[in-house]
Amino acid sequence: MNTIGHILRLTTFGESHGPAVGGVLDGFPPGIRIDRDLIDSAMRRRRPGQSALTTSRCESDRIEILSGLTPDDISLGSPIAFMCRNTDCRTNDYNHMAESFRPGHADYTYKVKYGLRDWRGGGRASARETLARVAAGAFATHILRQAGINISAALTGVGEVTAPDPFSEAIAGDMNPKLLVPEQISEAMNARILKARADGDSVGGSVGVIITGMPAALGQPVYAKLQADLAAAMLGINAAKGFEYGLGMQAAKRSGSETADSFLPAGNPLKSLQRPDIPGPAPMLRTSTNCDGGIQGGITNGMPVFFSVAFKPTPTISSPLPTADTSGKAMTLQSEGRHDPCVAVRAVPVVEAMTALIIADHLLLNRIISHESLL
Amino acid sequence: MNTIGHILRLTTFGESHGPAVGGVLDGFPPGIRIDRDLIDSAMRRRRPGQSALTTSRCESDRIEILSGLTPDDISLGSPIAFMCRNTDCRTNDYNHMAESFRPGHADYTYKVKYGLRDWRGGGRASARETLARVAAGAFATHILRQAGINISAALTGVGEVTAPDPFSEAIAGDMNPKLLVPEQISEAMNARILKARADGDSVGGSVGVIITGMPAALGQPVYAKLQADLAAAMLGINAAKGFEYGLGMQAAKRSGSETADSFLPAGNPLKSLQRPDIPGPAPMLRTSTNCDGGIQGGITNGMPVFFSVAFKPTPTISSPLPTADTSGKAMTLQSEGRHDPCVAVRAVPVVEAMTALIIADHLLLNRIISHESLL
Amino acid sequence: MNTIGHILRLTTFGESHGPAVGGVLDGFPPGIRIDRDLIDSAMRRRRPGQSALTTSRCESDRIEILSGLTPDDISLGSPIAFMCRNTDCRTNDYNHMAESFRPGHADYTYKVKYGLRDWRGGGRASARETLARVAAGAFATHILRQAGINISAALTGVGEVTAPDPFSEAIAGDMNPKLLVPEQISEAMNARILKARADGDSVGGSVGVIITGMPAALGQPVYAKLQADLAAAMLGINAAKGFEYGLGMQAAKRSGSETADSFLPAGNPLKSLQRPDIPGPAPMLRTSTNCDGGIQGGITNGMPVFFSVAFKPTPTISSPLPTADTSGKAMTLQSEGRHDPCVAVRAVPVVEAMTALIIADHLLLNRIISHESLL
Amino acid sequence: MNTIGHILRLTTFGESHGPAVGGVLDGFPPGIRIDRDLIDSAMRRRRPGQSALTTSRCESDRIEILSGLTPDDISLGSPIAFMCRNTDCRTNDYNHMAESFRPGHADYTYKVKYGLRDWRGGGRASARETLARVAAGAFATHILRQAGINISAALTGVGEVTAPDPFSEAIAGDMNPKLLVPEQISEAMNARILKARADGDSVGGSVGVIITGMPAALGQPVYAKLQADLAAAMLGINAAKGFEYGLGMQAAKRSGSETADSFLPAGNPLKSLQRPDIPGPAPMLRTSTNCDGGIQGGITNGMPVFFSVAFKPTPTISSPLPTADTSGKAMTLQSEGRHDPCVAVRAVPVVEAMTALIIADHLLLNRIISHESLL
Repeated sequence: MNTIGHILRLTTFGESHGPAVGGVLDGFPPGIRIDRDLIDSAMRRRRPGQSALTTSRCESDRIEILSGLTPDDISLGSPIAFMCRNTDCRTNDYNHMAESFRPGHADYTYKVKYGLRDWRGGGRASARETLARVAAGAFATHILRQAGINISAALTGVGEVTAPDPFSEAIAGDMNPKLLVPEQISEAMNARILKARADGDSVGGSVGVIITGMPAALGQPVYAKLQADLAAAMLGINAAKGFEYGLGMQAAKRSGSETADSFLPAGNPLKSLQRPDIPGPAPMLRTSTNCDGGIQGGITNGMPVFFSVAFKPTPTISSPLPTADTSGKAMTLQSEGRHDPCVAVRAVPVVEAMTALIIADHLLLNRIISHESLL
Repeated sequence: MNTIGHILRLTTFGESHGPAVGGVLDGFPPGIRIDRDLIDSAMRRRRPGQSALTTSRCESDRIEILSGLTPDDISLGSPIAFMCRNTDCRTNDYNHMAESFRPGHADYTYKVKYGLRDWRGGGRASARETLARVAAGAFATHILRQAGINISAALTGVGEVTAPDPFSEAIAGDMNPKLLVPEQISEAMNARILKARADGDSVGGSVGVIITGMPAALGQPVYAKLQADLAAAMLGINAAKGFEYGLGMQAAKRSGSETADSFLPAGNPLKSLQRPDIPGPAPMLRTSTNCDGGIQGGITNGMPVFFSVAFKPTPTISSPLPTADTSGKAMTLQSEGRHDPCVAVRAVPVVEAMTALIIADHLLLNRIISHESLL
Repeated sequence: MNTIGHILRLTTFGESHGPAVGGVLDGFPPGIRIDRDLIDSAMRRRRPGQSALTTSRCESDRIEILSGLTPDDISLGSPIAFMCRNTDCRTNDYNHMAESFRPGHADYTYKVKYGLRDWRGGGRASARETLARVAAGAFATHILRQAGINISAALTGVGEVTAPDPFSEAIAGDMNPKLLVPEQISEAMNARILKARADGDSVGGSVGVIITGMPAALGQPVYAKLQADLAAAMLGINAAKGFEYGLGMQAAKRSGSETADSFLPAGNPLKSLQRPDIPGPAPMLRTSTNCDGGIQGGITNGMPVFFSVAFKPTPTISSPLPTADTSGKAMTLQSEGRHDPCVAVRAVPVVEAMTALIIADHLLLNRIISHESLL
Repeated sequence: MNTIGHILRLTTFGESHGPAVGGVLDGFPPGIRIDRDLIDSAMRRRRPGQSALTTSRCESDRIEILSGLTPDDISLGSPIAFMCRNTDCRTNDYNHMAESFRPGHADYTYKVKYGLRDWRGGGRASARETLARVAAGAFATHILRQAGINISAALTGVGEVTAPDPFSEAIAGDMNPKLLVPEQISEAMNARILKARADGDSVGGSVGVIITGMPAALGQPVYAKLQADLAAAMLGINAAKGFEYGLGMQAAKRSGSETADSFLPAGNPLKSLQRPDIPGPAPMLRTSTNCDGGIQGGITNGMPVFFSVAFKPTPTISSPLPTADTSGKAMTLQSEGRHDPCVAVRAVPVVEAMTALIIADHLLLNRIISHESLL
């Protein structure tokens, strides 16, 4: 169950402190020139140790590509395998993990499920696994670029600090291609994170995503609705606790008369409705508002798609925590490893990568990108 | 893409006004005696036309079982197929749908995706498809009963009326096996729905679920985490806009020191941790609080699992709505068919059924229920 | 595990003497007008009781279509469900099956696997399940027709009577679109079957298939090679014991210098090789011989594809057979039900149907048939 | 489509002359100690350059394990990734491949399907991919050992030289746990291969497999019958042209009265039939003969399973071959790379590995090996 995707399928592998972490991306179309800079840049964005806001673990996160490309980096249509060796592994920092079940982590559940676990750095449950997701998302982004699709993700809330209604323009039917968070809010969020670190504590956060240039017709009824696949991908990210799209949780509080996205009359006759001119950034019909977040009946309608993901605070904090040891006795856990005070910060590129994978998968599933258009 | 599940797989079929709606449930274990009353009772709960709160369509919703059982209703291990013929189809009520794209529905997206659509009653996108989900969920419930698992779902919010923190006891680590909504809140929710109907409007709502008797070890890292499969199942239900589990969206606003679920010391030595005594209702280790909603690292820890799903208001309302017709010209839509003022009411048994399917699937995936224990 | 296919997925259900047998065909493209006569005619070819060569069970094999079509029989892109009720069920004929394990049947293995079995008429393991395969194959044939692909299957051997090298022309590189069996051989095969019946015995047989009009590029390396999917589909048919394609088993006895299919120079420059002019019946390059049976590296090269399937004799015969009863005691089985003296006869339309399903699935997987070309 | 398996899933990657070849094995049970010697020994058996019978390419075929094990080589239940770098790549030997379509290879079909291909050494279609299969099979063998299952594969034919009826004992119901080929036949086969090499030619061959210690109940009706999965796995191996099990192709020529495998009365009462004492090497009931090759209705009956796979001659030979170049012009191909005169020789460990994967997968699918029994 380490595979995600219908046509574009990512299988990942690797424990935090094992030899390597990596993945195999199958179903990638042939004939696409891979931009190594784009890959490296995505990996750098994910890498910890870059600012005071994240953990100081100094990993080498440059992936090695093992297969699937010609010598001049054109995709062959065969699986693209990649990996990154684990180097900066201060396993001793984690010795306390061998004998305790850390609160809010997967220590206990892995032990119960598998009978044994790789306790070093969280093993398979470590956030280091997301390295493979980000790499795969960077490959998927090549497909999206050809289709004119753009994904924009940002931190939209930290603790009590939240961007005022980040999707309001999109809901109002406006076509702003960027998810913009006011600079003063960004600064307040950063300050909130630094305060958590100073307090020996951590803090939750949320990540918003807006996708523009979406062609209509992506998504499959009934059980692979685009929002269902997105939700599964997002809830599969470590520490994610909730997913909402369009009006989201607010929709439960509204009336139908406020939230029906009326179709606007088309300027031109709709001859081509039988066969939409895809991939194209513009929808055939626009809607006056976008409460449905660009998805109706599980299928995109050509309006921007947007959603939000909530992340819990990092469960490991510097302050001591009561818990049980592996024999069931009470103990106090004093963590000393490196931790992010706010996992949502580092989740941003992961959310973006998983979004890219899901959308590229549905593009291929919808046969929108033909062999021809990819060369 | 009309199939859901890993081991217990449901494939559904049928258009609202076609000959029949039904499904095939594959992977159902052999040797289980099917209780027809349990099935019928689940179907009755889903059926519309039962109160002023729902549409008055008077369907016969009793399913016919076509395969998979012995003459005395014992499951054979082969696919269980079932169906329900469509009878009360006042297709004329829906004639307006042939020439217009209803706001907030799948009319436009199906037309774009498939080039043609069955406009009669919403076709495949109709809520009538959920009939097959509810039937399949009732079969799955037989598996859960043997494992001592109980699912309790309830309407927890309608418009601005919401139950005060319905999961607060569960979060506090309490083991209340029922999701209880205070009676006065229930009455206020009903009143809010009737007001929507009287206004020719509709209203959103939310559904909460609590699962007790959960064995530890259910769920698969990394891409079939239990919460990911639940989220996909919930977001695949018509009109669902968001999913959250445990602390949910609130987790983004909290600190780590408030939300770490400490493991409580076990009264007894943990000898059997290598091989939990499953299926059993009691966890091996309890946690002091349950902010994680019973799932850590994608795997259950034996505490109750709970989550919430937000539903948008029925997009079809009695008041006229501006939209475009199928040629792209502006028009005003005056609906006359039968509609639910609040889809969340009828979503309760559907949410429950999808939950039963996902949990039963993970039980089988985890090989917890052996051939032996099922006979 | 009652589903087959990647994109075009068939799920079947039903026991021989249960309420009904049927299937759900998902992934069928929208916009195709279904020809009910084509379906009925395929069903009639499969139906037993038609000649002295087959069992005399007189089933009504006309399927009822439950979903997936518009009122005027155009496919909607949603699942096509169909079924056939079981009517002529002389269950008493099969009473001996309740207490014995018939040699060569699935009685014993189902009992061991499931703990219980539907012994009436073979239950799920009955050849009646193939009814659903034939119906689904008839749907798939609609897709193949649009792509100009033709499947021709025939009985090519019964016992010691075999058609002399039925594929010799195809191997020699000739393009004969039909699999032709000389009339005198057909007559000898019929006589052999009648003799088996007269002797109270049964006899094995083989079925040959030739597919013409095959576009190049169908099939997937590495684990969904076209021949692998065909082999799995064929070995999944009741009583099949072997599969070979191209030179087949003979290839093991030959030298490389005799069996290399040389590419013939193209009359025209190969500009369009980047994007083959698909679907088209003609290959871009022909080969001088066709020892590889039109498939190289798991992918079609545009030459005819051909293969052969061996079927064992019907294990149930009129003569008494020693076996064990369900308590493990020795007994003699005296069968009285209706049986085919040669299952290979009735396997012909089943082989053809499974071939149609696999080829149509790979056509869709290869995105050769676009939305456009199907309307 | 580079993945095979239901529960135990192998995904492979790598081109012959790219950076590396490897795989990811997901679904491997936790708690199994991996024997590195067993892995290395399997890899050595596959490695070319070991005798005059095989190509002289001198690869380093020792795999590196990248994930899935504890530091002391116990499986974690997470994906086991492994790879082998490509070192001895005399790409210049293959320069002729860039401009020609070699007869009998996948050069042309890959070009047509993908628009481009990695022509160096056959790219993804090279036999070097089988390295990953053999490694994965060696892992799977650990599971089979615990279940008491033994796989024995051997070369049973080369050209006109064939072992006399290698399965005759098994068919007669005898329980010989080894597939034995008389020594003089082995010598004759070797001589036949050396002659092919001396002639600048190649020769076909066949590989037989016998599996003993098979528990009853493995395999899934209807579309994942054990023989269907085995056939797909075997036909997915390079150069395989046919698969037969039990009586195989001969079954088509026989009568039912000769080939019905009668169940023998059990010495002991069959109390435990409801729950077979699995995994155990002995069947509950034996059959007098084993024409069905241990599989009935797609499910094992506890008798030995055996089958045979036919391989065509290596299409690349030293003698010149007429073909077309990539522009479609006639040319003569003079190969200079290293080639096996008989691919069937090197196919033996590949056949064995794929068999191990399929059987282990079905063991897990059947939930026969419990968490407990694996520790």
